[in-house]
Amino acid sequence: MRWSKALIPTLKETPADAVAPSHKLLLRAGMVRQLGAGAYTYLPIGFRVLSKVVRIIREEMDAAGALELLMPALQPVELWKESGRYETFGDLLMQLKTSSDQHFALGPTHEEVITDLVRDLVRSYKQLPVTLYQIQTKFRDEPRPRFGILRTREFLMKDAYSFDANVEQLNDSYDAMYEAYCRIFDRCGIPYAIVEAESGPIGGDSSHEFMVPSSTGEDTIVQCPACNYAANKERAEIGAPSEAPAIPAATPDAPSPAPVETPNRRTIQEICDFLKITEAETAKLLVFLADGRPVAALVRGDHEANEAKVRRAFGATTLTQADAPTIEKATGAPMGFLGPVEIKIPLAVDRSVAAMPTVVVGGNKLDVHLTGVVPGRDFPLDKVLDLRNAVGGDPCPKCGRLMVENQGIEVGHVFKLGTKYSRAMGAHFLDDKGQEIPVIMGCYGIGVNRIVAAAVEAGHDDNGIVWPLSLAPYHVLIAPLQLNNPAVMEAAEALEKKFEAAGYDVLVDDRDQRPGVKFKDADLIGIPLRIVISERGLKEGTVEVKWRTDASAHNVSAATADEAILAELETTRRGMENVSAERRISRAASRGQ
Amino acid sequence: MRWSKALIPTLKETPADAVAPSHKLLLRAGMVRQLGAGAYTYLPIGFRVLSKVVRIIREEMDAAGALELLMPALQPVELWKESGRYETFGDLLMQLKTSSDQHFALGPTHEEVITDLVRDLVRSYKQLPVTLYQIQTKFRDEPRPRFGILRTREFLMKDAYSFDANVEQLNDSYDAMYEAYCRIFDRCGIPYAIVEAESGPIGGDSSHEFMVPSSTGEDTIVQCPACNYAANKERAEIGAPSEAPAIPAATPDAPSPAPVETPNRRTIQEICDFLKITEAETAKLLVFLADGRPVAALVRGDHEANEAKVRRAFGATTLTQADAPTIEKATGAPMGFLGPVEIKIPLAVDRSVAAMPTVVVGGNKLDVHLTGVVPGRDFPLDKVLDLRNAVGGDPCPKCGRLMVENQGIEVGHVFKLGTKYSRAMGAHFLDDKGQEIPVIMGCYGIGVNRIVAAAVEAGHDDNGIVWPLSLAPYHVLIAPLQLNNPAVMEAAEALEKKFEAAGYDVLVDDRDQRPGVKFKDADLIGIPLRIVISERGLKEGTVEVKWRTDASAHNVSAATADEAILAELETTRRGMENVSAERRISRAASRGQ
Repeated sequence: MRWSKALIPTLKETPADAVAPSHKLLLRAGMVRQLGAGAYTYLPIGFRVLSKVVRIIREEMDAAGALELLMPALQPVELWKESGRYETFGDLLMQLKTSSDQHFALGPTHEEVITDLVRDLVRSYKQLPVTLYQIQTKFRDEPRPRFGILRTREFLMKDAYSFDANVEQLNDSYDAMYEAYCRIFDRCGIPYAIVEAESGPIGGDSSHEFMVPSSTGEDTIVQCPACNYAANKERAEIGAPSEAPAIPAATPDAPSPAPVETPNRRTIQEICDFLKITEAETAKLLVFLADGRPVAALVRGDHEANEAKVRRAFGATTLTQADAPTIEKATGAPMGFLGPVEIKIPLAVDRSVAAMPTVVVGGNKLDVHLTGVVPGRDFPLDKVLDLRNAVGGDPCPKCGRLMVENQGIEVGHVFKLGTKYSRAMGAHFLDDKGQEIPVIMGCYGIGVNRIVAAAVEAGHDDNGIVWPLSLAPYHVLIAPLQLNNPAVMEAAEALEKKFEAAGYDVLVDDRDQRPGVKFKDADLIGIPLRIVISERGLKEGTVEVKWRTDASAHNVSAATADEAILAELETTRRGMENVSAERRISRAASRGQ
Repeated sequence: MRWSKALIPTLKETPADAVAPSHKLLLRAGMVRQLGAGAYTYLPIGFRVLSKVVRIIREEMDAAGALELLMPALQPVELWKESGRYETFGDLLMQLKTSSDQHFALGPTHEEVITDLVRDLVRSYKQLPVTLYQIQTKFRDEPRPRFGILRTREFLMKDAYSFDANVEQLNDSYDAMYEAYCRIFDRCGIPYAIVEAESGPIGGDSSHEFMVPSSTGEDTIVQCPACNYAANKERAEIGAPSEAPAIPAATPDAPSPAPVETPNRRTIQEICDFLKITEAETAKLLVFLADGRPVAALVRGDHEANEAKVRRAFGATTLTQADAPTIEKATGAPMGFLGPVEIKIPLAVDRSVAAMPTVVVGGNKLDVHLTGVVPGRDFPLDKVLDLRNAVGGDPCPKCGRLMVENQGIEVGHVFKLGTKYSRAMGAHFLDDKGQEIPVIMGCYGIGVNRIVAAAVEAGHDDNGIVWPLSLAPYHVLIAPLQLNNPAVMEAAEALEKKFEAAGYDVLVDDRDQRPGVKFKDADLIGIPLRIVISERGLKEGTVEVKWRTDASAHNVSAATADEAILAELETTRRGMENVSAERRISRAASRGQ
């Protein structure tokens, strides 16, 4: 391909409204353009990257035995009402009515549609297991589209759904997808962490997210630097403190709690400013309805309560935040001044609070807080548990080492759904005993566009994008410096032909531009390998070769440039494959443990 | 692929609501399922066919030098208001508002979006010509979705747009797309006619439709069996009668027109029934507003007036049908009884009417018609022209032979847009003289799903689908008849491996079913080549081979079955390629004439 024919509208200036590196660079490299809020056009070289991601996903899904199909974006809303998600999805669901008054949703995901299909097609356990997938455009009424192609209203998703007759089959289907995802992200050349995410109803470690570390990421993950434990902040368990839990014995000598007047100071921040203490010296009492019954959770002022953990602490199946009237009725105390002393409802205390010698809490009276409150003396420690989101510095639940906190971009998610949809929508089959039971499902998503963005977030420098070889729009850029010199152009075209015949995509910069402009653009669009052919080089019998990841160029003999460069390309390609293969072996080994 | 793993839910019964052969058979073959009105899911083997069409289109578009990109389905309606199509597209445009009250259309086509993109990216004639394309999902609020996947609300389209600096460039871009389309349809193995369609504003033969003949088709085309002339019925010219036009000399001897009472008989049908004559013995007078001025056109009772031809007959730029009050005011005659005798407004007469010795027409009075009216004596023949839609039996405008009428499915359309969008939306560039002028556009569409349907319409028999080799979900079906016989299964698997290694897609029917069921299903899903491996055959040293297009099977030696069958496959594949190549040569030759 000739640069002059390729429509690559690079920009010198960074667009003002772009913040994320991937957003800035994809715009500057002429890969995408915004059409409207949350809707992007992929220009030719951006589309080439997207296509390469699609191809890798398709190959690995096919290799994993999944069958590709294609479902419509237009979904009758009746299906959403059947599954019960019409309400829970709320405003995020884009909807329209046809002129004949039929009511459609634009699919943000296809659990309903595929469950509807499978209840029609699958009747017997003999048809199971089966995993179906599509690579298809999704819609979501994102209230705040941002970070360029990272969070948009329209995006390409690979969504897969497994249908199994029993839990063993589900586990196999899940593992096959998990493994396929690893291979996809390995082959895409992006760094990723696999983190535990909120569990499905079948229990166990039945949901994982694939996260690319990036400060642009909207998810927070905590990772153990020692073992391979990683989890979403909301999901992470917190290891017990390495020393014996420092729950203080009741200290009868300590002074009694002292009430202080805190007029109109309701938030932790206001109390701390007023009393000149840190948030870590306070605790906040939160009131929930656990299966409808009021309960209280006490966490440190600088921590976030984790509702799933609180729910489990009280053995409840549902947990909702209580509103102000409910709280006042249950505790007799006004919002902003709640505390654990003489509490009238069941109380669970986070381990970090239980470990404090004294703590500042609400006084259960308007405009009153208590200082010098001693856990275990002034309020009960019958139920001390992990009740909060993890943060960097918390101990790893597996090995106890201190975990670190990172931002991440979610690029994939695998999830054991169980029978949520099949039960709600009546997708039953006859098992081998002739009994009609709901099919067991899993769902598996990959954000195709997000892989493109994540690859840029993980691969860029001050000069532009650094594509992995597998995703680069072109593998090789050939820059002939003297367009009017036939020897230079012939050498360029000869190399182009050789590389293309070997299966590499080649871009020839045939623009009548200064070398500086060409090199800057080459760096910006991130082509992995740059070949410079010049009069002087040819006179000296050399061709200049520079990898985008290298600081400097090196020369190869012009006479054997084709073979030398192809050998370098092959080495890089095989290097990526080896990484992928080694990781596969190491995953297999760790499963075998 | 094993049949038992392929999810092919064939149906024995034809679904009650399916009328078109493609609709019935794609459902019965387990290729598609309806999700909602006008929205279809492509099941795995249907998706394989769709993918093969997509791959052929992509290869030929790339070979023609077009650049692929991807634009969003969500389009800000402001762009549609800018182009002026927001009104003209009307209810067909699907629309929605986001929760933040942004107003989007779901793109039925992308002229606005791409013109918006190009006005941003293209500044100079040096960036032209460029042709951009995408293969992307379109939406259309079709009031009457029907014929299965032929007319749906959501469909896959290949839409391309050319941008040129001058008319010569446009012609080259147009010809490149025209040629690419021929190669696409040739490679897809579907019969097609290229018909002239309504011209664009640049004039000449600047719009062509690609039609697959089928009784299910919603378009009517007339074709000359002698030369290659073909056109949409609405667009076709009608050749002059082969003999000198039989405009009768005024025949003073003939009796004067005779008024007959025709109380309440207003339609042609009512008059004919009442007078016991045929529609071809009558003529109907139609009143239009040509640039606002009332004019009349007289066509035979059994013919349809063609508004484009009438418009041109009066040299007008707009033509609309006149309403009843306007007609009565202009002619003094009531609707249903209009006639050409003593007409007060300009009159154009169709050639077929001018050739009649006498004709029955309206009497320009309530409940009165005139019989024995002589053209040229009783009304003027100053303006005798072709004013009607062509029908089968009309002479070819190129060679004079009688044309035939067929129904057709439109699968592609190429169109010289000119500057309609670039002017309306300000997509200007600097030409080589430094002048800012609007870019010249062409647009080129292919209905991807329609190719699948058209291939079935053109390729089926009583037993099911007959796929062309290039589109078949699998090229070869291997049916081992004794699943428990290791020799049979080994022979099947050995052939499967050989064929797959040679690049063919193979389906092995591993179901525990009677041969009759397997053969019926094989015919239904339309796999081009069926291989039967049986105990008896192996004992006799043979393997049975049957082409879907052949009436009967033949045996090949089991020892050399792989090579013999591969040779047959190659012959068929090359046969299709040769047809495509021969047609290309013949097109090139006819262009050279």
